[in-house]
Amino acid sequence: MPHLPEHLLTGYRNFITGRYVAEADHYRSLAREGQAPETMIVACCDSRAAPEVIFNAGPGELFVLRNVANLVPPYAPDGEYHSTSAALEFAVQSLKVKNIVVMGHGRCGGIRAALDTNSAPLSPGDFIGKWMSLIAPAAEAVSASTMMTTGERQTALERISIRYSIANLRTFPCVKILEGKGKLTLHGAWFDISTGELWAMNNETGDFERPDVS
Amino acid sequence: MPHLPEHLLTGYRNFITGRYVAEADHYRSLAREGQAPETMIVACCDSRAAPEVIFNAGPGELFVLRNVANLVPPYAPDGEYHSTSAALEFAVQSLKVKNIVVMGHGRCGGIRAALDTNSAPLSPGDFIGKWMSLIAPAAEAVSASTMMTTGERQTALERISIRYSIANLRTFPCVKILEGKGKLTLHGAWFDISTGELWAMNNETGDFERPDVS
Amino acid sequence: MPHLPEHLLTGYRNFITGRYVAEADHYRSLAREGQAPETMIVACCDSRAAPEVIFNAGPGELFVLRNVANLVPPYAPDGEYHSTSAALEFAVQSLKVKNIVVMGHGRCGGIRAALDTNSAPLSPGDFIGKWMSLIAPAAEAVSASTMMTTGERQTALERISIRYSIANLRTFPCVKILEGKGKLTLHGAWFDISTGELWAMNNETGDFERPDVS
Amino acid sequence: MPHLPEHLLTGYRNFITGRYVAEADHYRSLAREGQAPETMIVACCDSRAAPEVIFNAGPGELFVLRNVANLVPPYAPDGEYHSTSAALEFAVQSLKVKNIVVMGHGRCGGIRAALDTNSAPLSPGDFIGKWMSLIAPAAEAVSASTMMTTGERQTALERISIRYSIANLRTFPCVKILEGKGKLTLHGAWFDISTGELWAMNNETGDFERPDVS
Repeated sequence: MPHLPEHLLTGYRNFITGRYVAEADHYRSLAREGQAPETMIVACCDSRAAPEVIFNAGPGELFVLRNVANLVPPYAPDGEYHSTSAALEFAVQSLKVKNIVVMGHGRCGGIRAALDTNSAPLSPGDFIGKWMSLIAPAAEAVSASTMMTTGERQTALERISIRYSIANLRTFPCVKILEGKGKLTLHGAWFDISTGELWAMNNETGDFERPDVS
Repeated sequence: MPHLPEHLLTGYRNFITGRYVAEADHYRSLAREGQAPETMIVACCDSRAAPEVIFNAGPGELFVLRNVANLVPPYAPDGEYHSTSAALEFAVQSLKVKNIVVMGHGRCGGIRAALDTNSAPLSPGDFIGKWMSLIAPAAEAVSASTMMTTGERQTALERISIRYSIANLRTFPCVKILEGKGKLTLHGAWFDISTGELWAMNNETGDFERPDVS
Repeated sequence: MPHLPEHLLTGYRNFITGRYVAEADHYRSLAREGQAPETMIVACCDSRAAPEVIFNAGPGELFVLRNVANLVPPYAPDGEYHSTSAALEFAVQSLKVKNIVVMGHGRCGGIRAALDTNSAPLSPGDFIGKWMSLIAPAAEAVSASTMMTTGERQTALERISIRYSIANLRTFPCVKILEGKGKLTLHGAWFDISTGELWAMNNETGDFERPDVS
Repeated sequence: MPHLPEHLLTGYRNFITGRYVAEADHYRSLAREGQAPETMIVACCDSRAAPEVIFNAGPGELFVLRNVANLVPPYAPDGEYHSTSAALEFAVQSLKVKNIVVMGHGRCGGIRAALDTNSAPLSPGDFIGKWMSLIAPAAEAVSASTMMTTGERQTALERISIRYSIANLRTFPCVKILEGKGKLTLHGAWFDISTGELWAMNNETGDFERPDVS
């Protein structure tokens, strides 16, 4: 017997008898003609910040990479396999997306782990430790800002890491070139889980501000 | 001025004035108490196969890792950073999820790339090439099945790679141990973009069958 | 005393007092004017996949050849008697059918025997062995696909053998010529005994897909 | 696009929305546990004489071989492939059926061809000619009975060929042995397309008589 968690079967039943019915033709044509999303989103695995939900996205709209703390490591053509770089290469070179959005969010567990340098590794492999070490210098600097509250340091690092990932995106030659030609635009966004507010990065200043959506 | 692609702002407006209003309390409590998802999903970045859509999932329900072709590399505590292993460690050790579902889908571009051994790398870094080389032996074996159609080979490799990822999940000591104790269950699923059908893996045989959701 | 198995006498009683009454005129005219079926079906002997049941066919509708695994051997005008070729010749040349459908099905015992090369012959004559040896090359190739499950290999060979039989149909000059003139169409179909689903072959790709019958 | 003749799609729609619904559980268990028919029927391809219709048979009830004129060639373990012998071997040795019924019918085109010795071959391969030559001696003898009408000669040969096929069944060692042990019974039947009458062979005399089904 095939089996899936009951909550997934229930959810799927709602999808196939509800939303899918309305979008069946769209799904069929997306299957026939292939996907052509305009936008790639680099988001966090967090269960409270799904891009398709926050952006009310339909099938075919968003190419979504999700890892812990929505990090983009720097360009490293070292012959090793790199999950994030592979997704980026596929989105830019094969799908030719027009936008890449790095979306962080409040109360991010990965960012908290990066700031909490006293805690023991979660496992002998310490995979979270290694992964978050990508932003270790920033984490240390922020930890040193002792006059900021824990919450302020957390939000600060969440936003610094978004700018860090956007900077790393530019270390990929294809991204750099296409951005230069105006064929690709990079964006930063931050989602406040509590209030549902979306904050967008100002590309000139790097500040996060709330876009007017009224 | 902060800016985001117009289609995202439009989508966000729909979310914040629609779904969010109904779920505001839930978002607030999820922010206050933290996430506690029961299930982790390893899915593909494909814009046509978003887990939250297919499983009609609400905030806090699914911890979602998404990479190209929903692959789980084998356990490699080599001191390098590993995006997938980090997300897995966080889900299992910190969030203590009860289920991990590896969900593949039809017409997967990553799987197609793995079968198309004649094509040139997408970029000098050949990140997709390296990433998909994780299933190269299976891809070669399937490519040799010349009496199967291109579509049949594609579906075969999509399903073999799901079983491969589930096997790799078991190379992680924490997964192996918790599964042994009955505290963690591994599942395979495959989504047919064209028909919207969900196929679930039979854990005894490895075959994919459609669960009865009527 | 004439005798027949009791279940047949019971079934016949139901037919003659039920369905036959409604179709008596049709039977009489079919007897008077002879049969003129539009379609020939090459099906398996399997008791779970009767064409008249699956296609809800009335008298005179389907000319049905049934052998183990619905195989069509290649054209062989060697002066030997050939059951399949004789039926084919009669359907095409004498009845002038417009369609030939090769219909396979899931869990086919003949296909299973072709994949199970270790089992002993069923009898000294090894008639099943000889018969299934018609698709031995395909069976060997599929058996080599060790990363596929037993069920997946079975389904793969069931579908390959349908394409094989359709290819052999075209080795018959009369079929080749009439198909060229657009007077005869060849089709493939596969019946899933468990779900009752009918899958039809896409003549361009050879893939099997479910026709929309809603 | 997959395609099938329209009349088949219509018929299938009736099956899947009608009869299948009532028998779904039966189909599923037959798929799960395999077929175990009690009876094998050797019938003709004729579109007017489908065993499942005449015996109102349900799924799993009848293992059905159909060829032109429902002939069983004699046992010939010559290393060649033999469609009929393969089906017989499978039914007796693998499925262990309890009954084999050879069912002929009125107005059989194959029998007519056997009696019409002046007609040209249907094709250069003359497959019908070779196939019906199995009963050539009987056909010649019957043709010589010039005082019988054409219709009488046709019916006579239809019934002679049923007895001939039953005699050939006994040339198969496995059939001979199992019949001797009382584990297998052979039967003859003849269906009158015009009246819907079923005639059963008297195993002592070889005569065909109408069983009492009232």
